[in-house]
Amino acid sequence: MKLQILIFLLAIAFSTSNATQHPGLFLTPNGVKEIRKSMGKYPAFDKSVDELKRIADQAIESEITVPIPKDGGGGYTHEKHKNNYYEMNACGTLYQLTGRKVYAQFVRDMLLKYAGMYPTLGLHPAVKSETPGKIFWQTLNESVWLVHTANAYDCVYNFISESDRKIIEKNLFYPIAEFISNGNPANNAVFNKMHNHGTWATTAVGMIGYVMGDKNLVDMALYGSKKDGKTGFIRQLDVLFSPDGYFTEGPYYQRYAIWPFMTFAQVIQNQQPELKIFNYRDGILFKAVNTLVQCAYNGEIVYLNDALTKTYKTQEIVYAVDIAFKNNPTDLSLLGIARQQETFFVSDAGLATAKALKKNKIKAYDFKSILVRDGENGDKGGIAFLRNNSSLLTFKATSHGLSHGHYDKLSLSFFDNGNQILTDYGAARFLNIEPKYGGHYTKENYTWAMQSIAHNTVTVNETSHFDSKIKVSSDFNSEIQYSDISNKNMQIVSGIESNAYPGVKMQRTSVMIEHEAFEYPIIVDIFKVMADKMQTLDFPFYYRGQLVSTTFETTNNVAELKPLGTVNGYQHLWLEATGKTEKPNACFTFVNANRFYSISTLCNPNTQFLLTRLGANDPNFNLRPEAAFMLRQTNADNHTFVSIIEPHGLYDLSREVTVNFQSNIANIEVLKENQDLTAVKFETKKGKSFLLISANKDFSTTLQRNVEINGKIISFTGNYLFKEITN
Amino acid sequence: MKLQILIFLLAIAFSTSNATQHPGLFLTPNGVKEIRKSMGKYPAFDKSVDELKRIADQAIESEITVPIPKDGGGGYTHEKHKNNYYEMNACGTLYQLTGRKVYAQFVRDMLLKYAGMYPTLGLHPAVKSETPGKIFWQTLNESVWLVHTANAYDCVYNFISESDRKIIEKNLFYPIAEFISNGNPANNAVFNKMHNHGTWATTAVGMIGYVMGDKNLVDMALYGSKKDGKTGFIRQLDVLFSPDGYFTEGPYYQRYAIWPFMTFAQVIQNQQPELKIFNYRDGILFKAVNTLVQCAYNGEIVYLNDALTKTYKTQEIVYAVDIAFKNNPTDLSLLGIARQQETFFVSDAGLATAKALKKNKIKAYDFKSILVRDGENGDKGGIAFLRNNSSLLTFKATSHGLSHGHYDKLSLSFFDNGNQILTDYGAARFLNIEPKYGGHYTKENYTWAMQSIAHNTVTVNETSHFDSKIKVSSDFNSEIQYSDISNKNMQIVSGIESNAYPGVKMQRTSVMIEHEAFEYPIIVDIFKVMADKMQTLDFPFYYRGQLVSTTFETTNNVAELKPLGTVNGYQHLWLEATGKTEKPNACFTFVNANRFYSISTLCNPNTQFLLTRLGANDPNFNLRPEAAFMLRQTNADNHTFVSIIEPHGLYDLSREVTVNFQSNIANIEVLKENQDLTAVKFETKKGKSFLLISANKDFSTTLQRNVEINGKIISFTGNYLFKEITN
Repeated sequence: MKLQILIFLLAIAFSTSNATQHPGLFLTPNGVKEIRKSMGKYPAFDKSVDELKRIADQAIESEITVPIPKDGGGGYTHEKHKNNYYEMNACGTLYQLTGRKVYAQFVRDMLLKYAGMYPTLGLHPAVKSETPGKIFWQTLNESVWLVHTANAYDCVYNFISESDRKIIEKNLFYPIAEFISNGNPANNAVFNKMHNHGTWATTAVGMIGYVMGDKNLVDMALYGSKKDGKTGFIRQLDVLFSPDGYFTEGPYYQRYAIWPFMTFAQVIQNQQPELKIFNYRDGILFKAVNTLVQCAYNGEIVYLNDALTKTYKTQEIVYAVDIAFKNNPTDLSLLGIARQQETFFVSDAGLATAKALKKNKIKAYDFKSILVRDGENGDKGGIAFLRNNSSLLTFKATSHGLSHGHYDKLSLSFFDNGNQILTDYGAARFLNIEPKYGGHYTKENYTWAMQSIAHNTVTVNETSHFDSKIKVSSDFNSEIQYSDISNKNMQIVSGIESNAYPGVKMQRTSVMIEHEAFEYPIIVDIFKVMADKMQTLDFPFYYRGQLVSTTFETTNNVAELKPLGTVNGYQHLWLEATGKTEKPNACFTFVNANRFYSISTLCNPNTQFLLTRLGANDPNFNLRPEAAFMLRQTNADNHTFVSIIEPHGLYDLSREVTVNFQSNIANIEVLKENQDLTAVKFETKKGKSFLLISANKDFSTTLQRNVEINGKIISFTGNYLFKEITN
Repeated sequence: MKLQILIFLLAIAFSTSNATQHPGLFLTPNGVKEIRKSMGKYPAFDKSVDELKRIADQAIESEITVPIPKDGGGGYTHEKHKNNYYEMNACGTLYQLTGRKVYAQFVRDMLLKYAGMYPTLGLHPAVKSETPGKIFWQTLNESVWLVHTANAYDCVYNFISESDRKIIEKNLFYPIAEFISNGNPANNAVFNKMHNHGTWATTAVGMIGYVMGDKNLVDMALYGSKKDGKTGFIRQLDVLFSPDGYFTEGPYYQRYAIWPFMTFAQVIQNQQPELKIFNYRDGILFKAVNTLVQCAYNGEIVYLNDALTKTYKTQEIVYAVDIAFKNNPTDLSLLGIARQQETFFVSDAGLATAKALKKNKIKAYDFKSILVRDGENGDKGGIAFLRNNSSLLTFKATSHGLSHGHYDKLSLSFFDNGNQILTDYGAARFLNIEPKYGGHYTKENYTWAMQSIAHNTVTVNETSHFDSKIKVSSDFNSEIQYSDISNKNMQIVSGIESNAYPGVKMQRTSVMIEHEAFEYPIIVDIFKVMADKMQTLDFPFYYRGQLVSTTFETTNNVAELKPLGTVNGYQHLWLEATGKTEKPNACFTFVNANRFYSISTLCNPNTQFLLTRLGANDPNFNLRPEAAFMLRQTNADNHTFVSIIEPHGLYDLSREVTVNFQSNIANIEVLKENQDLTAVKFETKKGKSFLLISANKDFSTTLQRNVEINGKIISFTGNYLFKEITN
C-alpha cells in the first residue's frame, strides 16, 4: 500500500494541471456545449434540467436570506441554509447551461452575504454535536454546504469580478475550509478520520481547493492534513471499503458515503486525470457502486445498522450511477438502474448516461446472490444476500460497523413478493424533524434499535452482544464459515460468532431452497448455540403482517400489558401473549399482502413462545408498533434452533380467493448433531422428505465425509449436503 | 310506483321474446362474432380473454372434482366449489369464442357431476349461517355459484344433448333454483327480501330461468315469489337505492350488490329489451354505478360500515362499468375508470368498452364533491364526499345500513396525498381465511368495529349510539341540515343526530377550505353536543402516521398498559398516555408519508387528551394496532368541539428536506354560540384571521341574518358565512 501512495505522491508532484479552467468540477466547457446542444433530445435529462431550473427560477425571484444560524436539523435556519446551497448549486449550473447572468448574479450576491456573515460566527448555538459547525449544528453539514457551494462557485467563477472573488475567498471559502479541516482538534480529527464524515470533509476542502486553484488545500484533501498519505481521501479509499466494495457502516451509510466518494472522484478525474482515480485499488469505486446497488430490494436500500428509507431515486445514488457509467462507459449494466431512477445528475456524467440510455437496448440490472466481505482486507466477516425470484435473504456476519453499527451478529432479514417480511428495525430516528429530538438519532436508537433483541438473531440472558459495548464489539467480527451461491435452487451461507458472549459460540447456517415441493423458495435456518453453562436464549422473528394461526396454544395478556424486561431493549417490548406446546414442532402463520408466511420450528418442553409488540417505555412515541414471534429457550447450554420460513398460498381479497393458507411443513427433526455436523430432516404434508447436512467444522469443499445416520452411511464431498430422501 | 309496476307487468304479459337463443345472457351470437373478429385488435381486452383462457386451459387439463361439501369460507371444499364455477364460466365463454368442444365438454361433464351429487345433499354441515346452503355454508354463495354456472350453461346449451340437459336441469338447476327461492322459509324470506342477498338470489334464479326458457322462474325473479311485484328484482331497484343511487349498506356492499344488479340488468336487457330496465326509475342503475365510483379514493372504495379493501379492479366493478357503458354508450365519462381497471368483462359489454377506449380520447373520471341522500325516498339522511385536489372528506349522516351498519353517526374520515389520514376502521374480518373465525366477521367486528368509539365521532358516557341496538338504530337516521358544495374553495356540510342518545342532540358542521393562507385544503370541524344533563364526551381522531409533537404535556403509561374501559369497544383500547393543558387550544401533529398533519382544537380545564392504541382484549389477534388522539370532555351538557385538520409541509426523506413541520394555526376561538348559530374565529401564525358562522337552525338559503359579534353587526344571507377578517 505504501508504494502505491508513493507513486501517487510522485504523480501529483509532477502534475501540471494547476491552471484551473472553469467550470471544471462536474461540468466542463465541452460538456456544457454538449448539454446545450442536446436540450430537447433526451426528455428525461431535460426533466432533470427543468427541475434545477425550477429551483433556480424560484430562487432569483426571492429575496436572498442568509439567517444567523440558530436551529437544529429540520428547524428554520438549518433548512434555509440547506435550501440556499441547493439554490446556489442550481443557479450556478443554470448559468452555465443558459448563460443568463441573473443566475450568476444570484450566486455572487448570496456568496457575498455569506462572506459578510461567516467571519462573525462562533460555534452553532444548538450544541448537540461533538463537532458543532458554524452555519449548521454539526460540521458535517458545513462540509455538505461547501460541496454544493464549491460547484456553484466553479460555475460562476469567471463571471465574478476578481475583487469580489477576493472577498468571497478570503472571508468565506478559506475560513470555512480551514474550519472544516483544522478549526479545532475535533474537526481536524474528523478530517483525518477513516469515516464517512472524513470523506465529506476532504471532498469539501478538495473541491473548493480545485476551484480556487489552491494546491495546498487539494493536497490536504487527497493525502491528509500532513500530506503524508496516511489520512485523506486516497487513504479512505484503501480503508473504508472492503475489497468487495462494502462499506463497513452498512448499506444505508454506504449510500451516503458514495456521494462524496463518487463526486470527488469525478472532480479528481477532471482535474488530475493522471491520478486515474477510478482505477485505484482495482476499481474500488465501481465495486462500491455495484455493491450498493445490490444492497437493495425493490429499489429500496435494505435496513441494516442505523438505516432509514432510501431508494435508488435519492440524489446520491443518481450521482453515483451516472458518474460510474461516465467513467466506465463500456459497462452497460448500471443503465438498468439509471432507467429506474428517471432523473440525472445535470453534468457531463448525467448527459453521458442519458445518451447511453437512449442509444442502447437496456437490460434490467442483474440482481444476484452475493457474498461481500467486510474489512479493509476483506477479513472481517461478511454479509450475504441470497436471492431467488422475488425473495431476498440478508445474512449479516460482519464487524461492528463503527458508530452506526448494531449488536446484530448473525441476524437475518427477509423480503418476498415485493414486501418486507422479516424485518430489521433500522434506526429510531426522524431525520430532520425538529420536534423529534432535533432530527437526531433518538434515545431509543440506542436503547432499542441497536440492541440484540431488536434483531432476528439470538440474545443470551437478556443481554446484548458484547454487552452493548461498542469498544469491545469493534475489536471483533463474525466470520463466514462457508457459503455456496453457485446454484440458484440451493444457496447456503454459514457464519459463526465466537465473541459476543463469554463462553458462548453461535453458529448460523441459512439455506434458500427452491424445490417443486414448495410454491416459493423457502429458508431453512439452523441456529446452533454452544455454551459452557445453562442460559436463556431469546430468538425473535420480527414479522410484518397479521397473525393467522399458531399450532400452539397461547395465553394472551388481554387486560394488561407489561414490558418483557427492564434493560437491553427488553423494556420496550410489551408481552402480548405466551405459548407452549407438547409437540416437537410449532408453526406460526401470518399474512402479508396477498401471501401467507409460516415459520415452522423445532421445540421441546423448555421452549416458550412469546408474542411481543414494540412500544413500552417510549415516552416520546419514537417507536413503531412492530410485532415479533419469539422463541425463548430456557436452561440451554447446547441448543440448536431449526426453523423453516415458508411463503405460501394466495390471499386475493379482490377476487376473494384463498389458497394454501397452511404451512406445507409436516415435521422438522434433527437426525444428528455433533461437533462435526448437524443433520436435519424435514417433511412436507404431501410426504416428501429432505435431508440437510451442514458441517460444523473443517469447511473444505473437497473433504469427503461419511456420516452414519440411523445405521446408514451417507457420503458426500464438501461442507454441506442437501437432497430429497427418496426411498 | 304501483303504476310503474303495473306497466311492467303488462309489458311482460305481451312479451314474445320467449324463444330463447343461446348464448343470450352476456354474450349474444352477434357479440361472439364480433369478439372473434376483434381478437388481436384490443390488447387489453385480449389480455382479459387470455386470463379466462388460462383458467379454462388449466381446468380442461385437470381432473373434474366435485367434493362433498364440508368446509366453511376459505376451506378446501368451499374454495373448490368456487373454483369450479370460475372454471365452468371460463370454459363456457371460451367455447363460444373458440368453438373448441373440449371446453364445452368440460362444462357438461362437471354439470353432470353436480347433477349427480346435488339431490343427495342435505344442508351444509358447517352451520354458521341462518341461511345455510347445500354446496356452501350459506345460500348466498349458492346463488353466486348459480349466477356463474347459468352463464356457463348458456354458453354450452346448444352443445349439450337434450337428454343430458334434461338430467342437468331436473337434478341440478331446478332443485337449486327451488332451494334458493323456496327451499325453506328462511331462503324464501331472503329471496323476497329487500337486501343484497335477495338481489343475488333473484339474479341467480332469473338467469337460470332465462337460459332454460322458464317464464315462471323469470317472473318470480323479477316480481317476487308471488309475482305481484311487491318483492323481486324490480322492487329491489325501487327500494335498495336512494334516488341518488346510494345503497344503504354503504359503499363496500354497494360494490357487492352492484354485481347482481348490473349483470342481471344486462341479461334482462338482452332477453326482454322491452322492459327498458336501464331506464327504470330514471336510470337508477347508472346512478348507482356512478355513486359507487365516486365512493373511492385512489381507486380504493372508502371504508364505511363493514368494509374491507376493494379497488376498482375487482371483477364486480369491472362488470358494472362495462355494462353501464355498453347500455349508455354516448356517456364517455366512465371510460376514465375503465382505463384504470385495465381488464374487461369478456362479453358484448366488455368489447364495446374496450373498443370505445381505443377510439376515444379518454379524460380522467370527474371526481367531484357530492352529497347523496340515503333511503328509498331520499329522506333518510345522507353522506357527503367533499373533495379538493388530493383531499377527500367523508361525512356520514345516514340511516343505520342494515346488518352491516355501524354506530357511527356523524362520523368523518379523511384522505389526503394518496393516503388514509383519519381512518374508519371498516370491518374486523379476514374474509376467506379459515383459521380466522372461518373467514366470517370476527367477534371483534361487533365488540369493536361497529361501536361508536371506533369512529371519528362523539361517544357519550362510554356508550355507543342507540346503545348498540340495531333494532333501535334502524328506526332512525341522521339528517343533513344543509350543505353547499358549489364552490370548491369553501365546501360545507352540516348534519344532526337527535336520537342516538336520550336527551342529547349532536350536530356537526364540517368545512373544507382552500385559501392561500394554507398550503393545502384544511377541514374546519364544529361538533356541537346539546345534552339535558352533565355527560362525558369522547371524541377520537384515528390517525395513520407517527406522532411528531403535541402542544400539551402528556403522562405516558410507559411501564404498564390497561384498557380504557370495559365495554362498548373501550375494552379494546390500550390507554398509552393522557394529557392536559391550561391553554385554550391544543395541537396534535403527526407525519404520514411526506406530509405533516395537525389537529388543532379548542379546549378548556375539563378537556383531557387521551392517546390510545387498539389491541386490548383481543385474544385471537384480530385487530390492527391503530392509534387515536382522543378528546375527552367531562362534565359537559352543552359543549362545542372546534377542530381544524390541517395538512402541511413536506417531509422528504429521500432528499432530506423538511418544510413547515408545525401547524399554521395560532388560535381558535368561539365568538358566539347559541341556538341560532355558532361563530368561530381562527387565526394563522402569520396573522390572518377568518370568521366562520354556521346556522344551528332555520337553514333557508335565502334568509338574511344579522349577527352581533363583539358589538359589530355582521350581515349575511343563507345558512353560513365564511370570510377573512380584514377589518
